[in-house]
Amino acid sequence: MNVKQIVLAERPKGLPTKETFRTETVALPTLQDGEVKVKAKYFSVDPYMRGRMNDVKSYAPPFQVNAPVYGTTIAEIAESKATGFEKGDLIKGVLPWATESVVNSKSIIKIDTSIAPPTYYLGILGMPGLTAFFGLLYIGKPSAGETVVVSGAAGAVGIVVGQIARLKNCRIVGIAGSDEKIKMLKEDFLFDDVINYKTTSDMNRAIKDSCPNGVDIYYDNVGGEISDAVISNISFHARIVLCGQISLYNATETPVGPRLQPILLSRSALMQGFIVGDFKENFSEGMQQLSQWVKEDKLTYKETIIEGFDKLPDALLGLFSGKNTGKMIVKV
Amino acid sequence: MNVKQIVLAERPKGLPTKETFRTETVALPTLQDGEVKVKAKYFSVDPYMRGRMNDVKSYAPPFQVNAPVYGTTIAEIAESKATGFEKGDLIKGVLPWATESVVNSKSIIKIDTSIAPPTYYLGILGMPGLTAFFGLLYIGKPSAGETVVVSGAAGAVGIVVGQIARLKNCRIVGIAGSDEKIKMLKEDFLFDDVINYKTTSDMNRAIKDSCPNGVDIYYDNVGGEISDAVISNISFHARIVLCGQISLYNATETPVGPRLQPILLSRSALMQGFIVGDFKENFSEGMQQLSQWVKEDKLTYKETIIEGFDKLPDALLGLFSGKNTGKMIVKV
Repeated sequence: MNVKQIVLAERPKGLPTKETFRTETVALPTLQDGEVKVKAKYFSVDPYMRGRMNDVKSYAPPFQVNAPVYGTTIAEIAESKATGFEKGDLIKGVLPWATESVVNSKSIIKIDTSIAPPTYYLGILGMPGLTAFFGLLYIGKPSAGETVVVSGAAGAVGIVVGQIARLKNCRIVGIAGSDEKIKMLKEDFLFDDVINYKTTSDMNRAIKDSCPNGVDIYYDNVGGEISDAVISNISFHARIVLCGQISLYNATETPVGPRLQPILLSRSALMQGFIVGDFKENFSEGMQQLSQWVKEDKLTYKETIIEGFDKLPDALLGLFSGKNTGKMIVKV
Repeated sequence: MNVKQIVLAERPKGLPTKETFRTETVALPTLQDGEVKVKAKYFSVDPYMRGRMNDVKSYAPPFQVNAPVYGTTIAEIAESKATGFEKGDLIKGVLPWATESVVNSKSIIKIDTSIAPPTYYLGILGMPGLTAFFGLLYIGKPSAGETVVVSGAAGAVGIVVGQIARLKNCRIVGIAGSDEKIKMLKEDFLFDDVINYKTTSDMNRAIKDSCPNGVDIYYDNVGGEISDAVISNISFHARIVLCGQISLYNATETPVGPRLQPILLSRSALMQGFIVGDFKENFSEGMQQLSQWVKEDKLTYKETIIEGFDKLPDALLGLFSGKNTGKMIVKV
């Protein structure tokens, strides 16, 4: 049986283009024992996937040229030769960008739709939610009354960071790139303040005004000049949680900026890079807490769902121009 | 009675000059109850003192213009109106750059010269030793077999960092600026490798060659391009201990360099600024351990002692051109 898949046609230099991807029709292999055939329902597109398009050593191995792009996906089992998996079950796994695929059952997990809708397992109950949870709580270590600034505040991770910080009784200031996002963050997610970096000429001043006691925790999803402005305003013993640097992922030369060590030094501040996998021993704890907060309506979520398998490249590219509000998902 | 003192004549822009300082003759106040009159014996000059010459908020308050420069000093009690302090006692305190001064006894401590010579209390058993101890052990958290790189390796802090790292069974690589220093670090302090940054054209390559498994801990005293080269070679879960940034202390514009967040992020690495005061609750533990290692000859030390009160400004300036090997001290 033939299925459609999207492969990496060439490694992009800078921002990926239409030439970066190619759609192919391929035959599925015959199902072996221990395997399942799945039909993709929802694809997650995430900023870290840009890094996998480069041929450099990082936490996630690079995608191969002329091989499918992979990403976290919710799929329905169409056929099973694996115990514990039945036709119709919804599963989550890192799957190829293909309308259907054959995968080993050890690489997938079933999801529980009694707790939340399936797409939540790509967002608040998936990697972005856990990333927000561990980065903020385990690295940022917020105390009541502290000021938390989050960049990319309207993104898949940012809206969870803000809500958890609020649950910890922090003052929460977001940075986002449109008036719509700002309205949403203030009204739906109860941020104390939100700064539109696209319409603010002096970000340093804006952060200073919004955080008169300094920034105790900076949860950084974007990097670049926005981060320079925030870091100029950190307080003594501040924690900078490096979750993402989306503004730099398409850089074609080494980005330069003000050296940060003098600021970190004079304020005894911490800057810590991490990936969610650093906390894998605590995943069940994180999932349990996030699920409970979702069930209790203490955490809510936002998704941007784009329809159509062919829209996958556009959806991924859209992340770099801030087209998503909350989690960007492609529905097949 | 008249004494000589050195005051901050004007705030320096960039590297301090002769015009930065002025020597004055002043009268000592009459001794009050609870005070002692002390005669300075050894002055410590330290890189952090440059920061105190600027009128900016930092961990140490700025020196005042037309008031004396202050620094850690070993002095002998000439007269005492304070219980527990007798004429002839050697004490340590943050004292004015003055040949003699009157101080409150609460701001000084007696030193025990049965453990080590008095100057050691300005170095290995003082702020530099504790800085090495806490930065390496509490932030760097070395494990046996790891690779530790220290910049400013031949300085007051660096030689202690190297020796403690060796006691923890790490591979220890130093960076220093003269062949004499390199010989000393290899022969007297048993560094596994030392790189002369002044004669090495490709520091990145030199670090890579010297640290084939990557840099697990970078204890940074200097900042700037040397640090860029080291940080390019950090391993996964590396710890960067920000102790000093001496190469930047005299900068007149905001120093720029490659953005480090992408590296920290892709390697889940930590960068932590600190001052020794962050660990003040653990000072007695640190002093006890350092004293024991000194008594057991597991730690040795090196000092550059310059004679003459009038040499204080030159001695301080000498730190910025690497004139010291080990602790820079001015003997009166």
